[in-house]
Amino acid sequence: MTYCVGICVRSGLVFASDSRTNAGVDSVSEYSKMYSFGVPGERQFTICTAGNLATTQGVIAQIERDIRNEVETNLMTVRSVADAATYVGALSVAQQEKHTGGGPVFEASFLLGGEVLGSKCRLLMIYPAGNYIESSAQTPYLQVGESKYGKPILDRVITTSTPLEEAALCALVSMESTIRSNLTVGPPVELQVYQAGGLLPGQYTSFTADSTYWRKLKKSWNAELRSAFSRLPPVDWLERDSS
Amino acid sequence: MTYCVGICVRSGLVFASDSRTNAGVDSVSEYSKMYSFGVPGERQFTICTAGNLATTQGVIAQIERDIRNEVETNLMTVRSVADAATYVGALSVAQQEKHTGGGPVFEASFLLGGEVLGSKCRLLMIYPAGNYIESSAQTPYLQVGESKYGKPILDRVITTSTPLEEAALCALVSMESTIRSNLTVGPPVELQVYQAGGLLPGQYTSFTADSTYWRKLKKSWNAELRSAFSRLPPVDWLERDSS
Repeated sequence: MTYCVGICVRSGLVFASDSRTNAGVDSVSEYSKMYSFGVPGERQFTICTAGNLATTQGVIAQIERDIRNEVETNLMTVRSVADAATYVGALSVAQQEKHTGGGPVFEASFLLGGEVLGSKCRLLMIYPAGNYIESSAQTPYLQVGESKYGKPILDRVITTSTPLEEAALCALVSMESTIRSNLTVGPPVELQVYQAGGLLPGQYTSFTADSTYWRKLKKSWNAELRSAFSRLPPVDWLERDSS
Repeated sequence: MTYCVGICVRSGLVFASDSRTNAGVDSVSEYSKMYSFGVPGERQFTICTAGNLATTQGVIAQIERDIRNEVETNLMTVRSVADAATYVGALSVAQQEKHTGGGPVFEASFLLGGEVLGSKCRLLMIYPAGNYIESSAQTPYLQVGESKYGKPILDRVITTSTPLEEAALCALVSMESTIRSNLTVGPPVELQVYQAGGLLPGQYTSFTADSTYWRKLKKSWNAELRSAFSRLPPVDWLERDSS
């Protein structure tokens, strides 16, 4: 499995992805699931992948080939993030169909976010069928993969006015909760923040399980959560009788 | 969908269940999913149900009929919680098979916990196939239904030495996170605490969405979580370069 989250706030975009892949439980590997493409001052895209690894690697390889071969439609020629999503969606469907032949379907999903000069900064999620949805003011984040464990903290913290640094921290906390509760999601954790309007490559880092910051974050969040829990009002057993 | 959680700590058992049932999104109803059976001083059982409502109602009705008709094996005659689980599992399989006929399967799962005089207090989860697993010192809680949203807080707080009142509060927080992130889980929330060795009916209450305590808990947990989040160490973007 996989967990990737993208957040679209007024000041830009945040992406976080884990790096664990598994086919069954005894074939566990480590792969990056975050890819960036761009031309400074003109366009920037970040893609996070989930689903069948052969499909996602095939799609990313095709994106790179199309740029190299300067085919008519590629990430360097599309006019908007939505056009980029249509293009990536089509590559994904083609890649899936190539190996299906009536057998199992090798599905994949993608988060795609970025900006093209002259159009606004956007975050989209591409389904296995190639169609896509966009984040909104009411739903400022999108997830692919193992999304449930990390959803509650996003629901509580993220609005479109959340500062970019705070959104990045929230993406890490969401990732940490997921890793803690699900074996198929694991570090290294990649994190990228893109400043809206900048059209420059996003700020990027990654944390291994042993990294000083990741360990500090895990420890702090665990301690803070337990301390938050200890301050809750005790169960009121009598309320029902008195209401 | 449904969310029920059972917790087995040294001092006893905690059960929490939601009350929303739905067949599609336009057939939404409210049903209790928590049932208790017992003889003070001799045996106490609590059952929480998830899955197909016709199946779970059929199983509970059969349990009640078997007690009334004093059939040989019923909840008032079984010698242990494990025997009770074998019995309930068999009723569930029979109920599912009755209406299947090669068509869709009307699956159900159950949490079953309690104590019979002379054997210890136990918590079990019964799968749709009728087989079951037990909680353990390493895994002191079991969930049925929509379990992922509410798992992180249980993983952080619950050990077998957690006091019963604290475990009850944690079950409510786990339920609140689930309700907040998933439409198919909803109040009233039922809560029951059973004191190990007491062999007396558990302490029971339920909270509607409007109940004073439930609103206070929601508000406190939201505020505490946000305040916990605000105290986390800011993202260290430079660590990767320096490591």
